Amino acid sequence: MPYVNIKITREGGPEGKGPSAEEKTRLIAGVTELLQTVLDKDPATIFVVIDEVALENWGIGGLSVPEYRAQQ
Amino acid sequence: MPYVNIKITREGGPEGKGPSAEEKTRLIAGVTELLQTVLDKDPATIFVVIDEVALENWGIGGLSVPEYRAQQ
Amino acid sequence: MPYVNIKITREGGPEGKGPSAEEKTRLIAGVTELLQTVLDKDPATIFVVIDEVALENWGIGGLSVPEYRAQQ
Amino acid sequence: MPYVNIKITREGGPEGKGPSAEEKTRLIAGVTELLQTVLDKDPATIFVVIDEVALENWGIGGLSVPEYRAQQ
Amino acid sequence: MPYVNIKITREGGPEGKGPSAEEKTRLIAGVTELLQTVLDKDPATIFVVIDEVALENWGIGGLSVPEYRAQQ
Amino acid sequence: MPYVNIKITREGGPEGKGPSAEEKTRLIAGVTELLQTVLDKDPATIFVVIDEVALENWGIGGLSVPEYRAQQ
Repeated sequence: MPYVNIKITREGGPEGKGPSAEEKTRLIAGVTELLQTVLDKDPATIFVVIDEVALENWGIGGLSVPEYRAQQ
Repeated sequence: MPYVNIKITREGGPEGKGPSAEEKTRLIAGVTELLQTVLDKDPATIFVVIDEVALENWGIGGLSVPEYRAQQ
Repeated sequence: MPYVNIKITREGGPEGKGPSAEEKTRLIAGVTELLQTVLDKDPATIFVVIDEVALENWGIGGLSVPEYRAQQ
Repeated sequence: MPYVNIKITREGGPEGKGPSAEEKTRLIAGVTELLQTVLDKDPATIFVVIDEVALENWGIGGLSVPEYRAQQ
Repeated sequence: MPYVNIKITREGGPEGKGPSAEEKTRLIAGVTELLQTVLDKDPATIFVVIDEVALENWGIGGLSVPEYRAQQ
Repeated sequence: MPYVNIKITREGGPEGKGPSAEEKTRLIAGVTELLQTVLDKDPATIFVVIDEVALENWGIGGLSVPEYRAQQ
């Protein structure tokens, strides 16, 4: 009965506001299949929660993502 | 000094957009009382954080919640 | 399909090393019943995960728990 | 390669709707520097994610934050 | 720069004490590839953290996992 | 009333098994002071939880940390 939490920046997708419903569906299906394949987990008891995080709320290398990308 | 995180789908409630403030208050009070009763924790140092998650961001059984319910 | 994560310090219980299995069971049952009562959630799709955290890994008021209690 | 998650109530800041981008930047820079100083971690592999939580979704002392403050 | 947290019960694997290092490696590789394929994320900035949870610390259906399985 | 969760690999420190109690104390004090300075939060209601993660349970770039370092 795994629980998987995927945190991504809210960007990209059809409107630039985050992944489409179809992309989220592929993430959910893919992670579930992976846990079934590798660890023989029952898909019925696999939860996946996707959190979309605003770019300015995500930091890497001591910078927010907008700053970080501006420096690349 | 427990920390409790409750993740639920954003639905139901008075406007269909998630639990009402009163329902959240009951969750907070109930969890706090439970920890006090079972583990003798001091309520003053119990934090509860409720996360409401969009239906399409929650997966079960390899499907997003909207797909999952459509199949039931 | 809620997911609840309860973080507590690893202490107390029958051997001073954290809650007993019976206490954990009461936490799980209590939180599940609360979500059923307040939000009408189906218990079959409620997950509860309890994390026990070493005292020195928990901070409050700028101090680790052992320091914090020594000052009270 | 640390991962730091900072959860705060969504309030304050320039419009009363949460910290400004500049305040978030200071949090990200400060936490990153702290991990570099204390544990000699490489900033390039330090992630910081800030979650802003609605006041009514945060509980302390068995009350939601709005109730809690009204009682102080 | 996604962050993925996989929580599983600590069981199975070569010694019955949880997944082998090789299984964990497959989980990490699989999730990373999935995020690269679906969302075009750069693998260099994908973190995966696997948490193994004691059976008695995991609840489903209002029961701890050992109780739950005994009832099946 | 912020909640901060710091996840680090379990390594280094006086015995190579993770940070010392003194280093954890410095992390707790530093994060608390940062939130007080930047957001004017009351230290009395700041929680910090440090999670130490086994190297083989942490992935980056599609590899577990031991594999990743072997390739550098």
